[in-house]
Amino acid sequence: MKVKVYVTLKKGVFDPQGKAVEDALHSLGFSGVGNVRVGKYIEMEINSTSTKEAERQTKEMCEKLLANPVIEDYSFKVEG
Amino acid sequence: MKVKVYVTLKKGVFDPQGKAVEDALHSLGFSGVGNVRVGKYIEMEINSTSTKEAERQTKEMCEKLLANPVIEDYSFKVEG
Repeated sequence: MKVKVYVTLKKGVFDPQGKAVEDALHSLGFSGVGNVRVGKYIEMEINSTSTKEAERQTKEMCEKLLANPVIEDYSFKVEG
Repeated sequence: MKVKVYVTLKKGVFDPQGKAVEDALHSLGFSGVGNVRVGKYIEMEINSTSTKEAERQTKEMCEKLLANPVIEDYSFKVEG
């Protein structure tokens, strides 16, 4: 099964990479852009026959490795 | 309007970060995981009244700054 994981910094955590991208976009003339936040997007294959089991595993992976739960939020989608 | 941009390495481009994450997941006991690829997930607000115009701007931002079209693919969603 294909899994897509999205990891973002929590609201209120300063995002210097997002700020740099925002400044660069302004310099390029995209003046209407704001609130840029940069996160991670992870794709993977899980060898599992049940969506429930794949979701359980993905949640565990996010909490143990993929995201830092102190400063990051995560969400994911399991595709059949 | 809220825009979500997903940037991934093209198929066939070696992804050392994905490989490192995959190895770490295996070490943690997630043996059924494979083909891990790590990309970027960018959220931003665009000051625009038309979805079409926001899409046009986002495409231009991806091509000029957010993605490297030589080695990366991108996709995005504009949310009203």
